[in-house]
Amino acid sequence: MQVDEGINSVSYQSCPMNGGDGPNSYSNNSNYQRRLIEASKDLINEAIHDKLEIDSSCVNGSKPFGIADLGCSVGQNTFIAVQNIIEAVEKEYKAKNESNSPVLEFQVFFNDHSNNDFNSLFRSVPYSSRNYYAAAVAGSFYGRLFPNSTLHFVNCSCAVHWMSKVPTEVLDRESLAWNGNRIHYTTSSEKVYEAYAAQYKNDLECFLSVRAQELVGGGLMLIVVPGQSSHLVSQTPRATTTWLLESCLLEMVKMGSISQKQVDEFNIPIYFPTLKDMEEITKNNGNFRVERMGIVRGKGYIKPSVEFLVGSMRAVMEEILKQHFGDEVIEDLFERYAKKVAQNLDSFYTKFREYEDLFVILKRKMN
Amino acid sequence: MQVDEGINSVSYQSCPMNGGDGPNSYSNNSNYQRRLIEASKDLINEAIHDKLEIDSSCVNGSKPFGIADLGCSVGQNTFIAVQNIIEAVEKEYKAKNESNSPVLEFQVFFNDHSNNDFNSLFRSVPYSSRNYYAAAVAGSFYGRLFPNSTLHFVNCSCAVHWMSKVPTEVLDRESLAWNGNRIHYTTSSEKVYEAYAAQYKNDLECFLSVRAQELVGGGLMLIVVPGQSSHLVSQTPRATTTWLLESCLLEMVKMGSISQKQVDEFNIPIYFPTLKDMEEITKNNGNFRVERMGIVRGKGYIKPSVEFLVGSMRAVMEEILKQHFGDEVIEDLFERYAKKVAQNLDSFYTKFREYEDLFVILKRKMN
Repeated sequence: MQVDEGINSVSYQSCPMNGGDGPNSYSNNSNYQRRLIEASKDLINEAIHDKLEIDSSCVNGSKPFGIADLGCSVGQNTFIAVQNIIEAVEKEYKAKNESNSPVLEFQVFFNDHSNNDFNSLFRSVPYSSRNYYAAAVAGSFYGRLFPNSTLHFVNCSCAVHWMSKVPTEVLDRESLAWNGNRIHYTTSSEKVYEAYAAQYKNDLECFLSVRAQELVGGGLMLIVVPGQSSHLVSQTPRATTTWLLESCLLEMVKMGSISQKQVDEFNIPIYFPTLKDMEEITKNNGNFRVERMGIVRGKGYIKPSVEFLVGSMRAVMEEILKQHFGDEVIEDLFERYAKKVAQNLDSFYTKFREYEDLFVILKRKMN
Repeated sequence: MQVDEGINSVSYQSCPMNGGDGPNSYSNNSNYQRRLIEASKDLINEAIHDKLEIDSSCVNGSKPFGIADLGCSVGQNTFIAVQNIIEAVEKEYKAKNESNSPVLEFQVFFNDHSNNDFNSLFRSVPYSSRNYYAAAVAGSFYGRLFPNSTLHFVNCSCAVHWMSKVPTEVLDRESLAWNGNRIHYTTSSEKVYEAYAAQYKNDLECFLSVRAQELVGGGLMLIVVPGQSSHLVSQTPRATTTWLLESCLLEMVKMGSISQKQVDEFNIPIYFPTLKDMEEITKNNGNFRVERMGIVRGKGYIKPSVEFLVGSMRAVMEEILKQHFGDEVIEDLFERYAKKVAQNLDSFYTKFREYEDLFVILKRKMN
C-alpha cells in the first residue's frame, strides 16, 4: 500500500489517478468529473458574488488571493475549475474597487498525493493564458498542507470521497464488519456500511478541521463529491460498477490468477456521503457556515458507452488495483470488466442518470 | 530546444538536470554542489543573525516565512539548503521573541524548470523530519514566479550561471561573435566572451528585478554561483572540461556520427560571472544592499576521479546534449569524454582546486 506522510507524520493511503496523457490516463478519462466542474460554475459565481467579502480583511489586494485545488490529479479539469474561480473573483474585485486599486494577485496551489504525476501537471499548465502564480503541493488533504490563514478559496471536486484508509474493521476476520469476498460496502452488509461511514466521519472531520486553519476568516470552500441520497446501499446507483468489478475479481480467483485472500484483503477506500453525513459533520466541526448544500442527480451524465465506462473506471482504479493485485493481472481484469459492462450496458442508461453528487459551499467563520 | 514559458509569456531555454535517482542522475552526481551548500551554512547563519529583522514588519509570525530555493533540481541538496535556512531563522526567532509568541510557520517553494523531475523531488521530501509546508513552482527564475512581497529568504545555489538562452550573436554566421566549431566562450574568442557577458548582464538584471518584487523589504537572498576571478577566459580553470567535451564532439563530426552544422549551432548557455559583473549588475538594479560578496577557491573540492568528473558533467549536461544531438549519440559521447578525462586526470588535481565560486548575500531594501 502506498502512503503519504503529512507534516504531522500521519500516514494516509494514497490512490493516484493514472498519470500522463495516454489512452488510460485520467487526463483522457475524466469527462464525468469535467461535467461536474462545468455544473459548479454558476454555484461558484453566485457564492463569490454573494458571500465573498471583497475589500475587507479577507480580500483586499495587500496579500495574494490564495486558491487551492485539492485532489487536482492531472489534465485540464483542474485548470478549468481554477479559471472559473479566478474569473468570478476578478469580476467582483473590479466591481467593488476603484480602477486604481492594487491589482489582486492570485496564487494557486494544485494539490494531490505525492505520487500524483506532477510532471504531467506542470507540463500542461496553460502558461500563456494563465493570470496566476502556480504551485504544486504534495500530500493528503486529510492533513495540513498550508500555513495558517493563507487560502481564500478551496476547491475540492470529485476527491473527498477517497478516504484516508480502508476502515480497519472490514479487514479484520474477527469483526462483524469483516468484508471478505467483497470489495466495497455498496455490495455488502449494513455492518460494513457502518464501518465505512464511521471512518468517513473521522476523515471529513479531519478535513474540515485542517481547512479551518488554512482558510482565512470569510474564505470559501466548494466541495463537490459523489454522494448518495439514501444510506441504503442497495439503492446506490454507483453499486453496479463496483459489483461488476468485484465479480471479475471473483472469477479470477476461480481461474487461479489471484487468490481468495487477496480479494478478502482488498477494499476500495471510497465512501459516497449522504446529505445527512455532510450536515452533521459540518455542524460538529463548527468552524463553517453552510452557504449551500444540496444533492443533484445526473449532472455528470454523458450517454454511456463501454469505452467511456471502462476508461473512467480504469483511470481512477488501475493504480490501487496494481498496488494490491500486481501489474500482471490488470489487462485481464479490465478485459473481463469491459465484457461485463457490455453485457449490462442497457442498465447503465438508467443507472447513470441516477448518479448523485453533493454540492456544498462553506464559508469559514471569522474567529 | 525545450523552453519554459513565464507568466509574462516570455520563453526561456530549459536545461534540466538528470532526474530520478539512477547512476547518471543529478541526485547521485552533485557532490560538488553539496560541498558549496555546506560551505554556505556559516554565511547563512551569520546573515540571518546580523541582517534579518526579526520582530519587524519583515518577520513577525503573523505571516508564514516564505523561502524559495531557485533551481532546486532533484536530490537531497535542496532539502539540506532549506533546512540550514530554517534552523538559523528559528534560532533567531526564538532568541528574539517571548516563548508565548506565535509559532513562526515556514512555507518553502522548490523551484526549477517545468521539465525538472518534480515527481522525484516530491518523493524525496523528508516528510517525517520537515517542519515546513512544501510547494513546488515550475518556471524559469528569470521571470516572475511568486506574488509580490511573499518571500523572506531566497536561496539560489549553483543555478544562476545557467543563462536564459544562448546569446543570438554566437549563432549568427554573419556576426563577429559567431562561435562555429566551438561550444562555449571559455574555448573561444574575446568577441564570443563579450556576447555571453552581455547576455548574462541582461539575464541577471531580469533575475534581480523580479526577485526585488517577490522579496519583502528586509528579505535576504543568497546567491552561490560558479564564477571566475578574471575575465580572461583562458584563465578559467573550468575551461578544461568544456574543451574536452568540445574535442569529443569534433571527433564525432570526423567520424560522421554528428554533423559540423550541429556543432556550429550548439553552445552551452552557461556563464561564470566575475565579482565585477555581480557588483555592477547589483548596483544598477538598485533594489538590494550588498551584505556580503566574495569569490572563493576550491570550496567544492573533492579529490577528482574519472567517475566523479564524468558523472558530474553527465548529470548536468546530458539533457541539453540530447535535445541538440539526439539520444543515440550520448553513450558514445560520454565514453569518449571519460577517456579524455582519464588521459588528463593529473591536470584536474590542480585545476579542480582552482575552481572559483561567488558567494553573495543581498538584502532587499525597504521601499
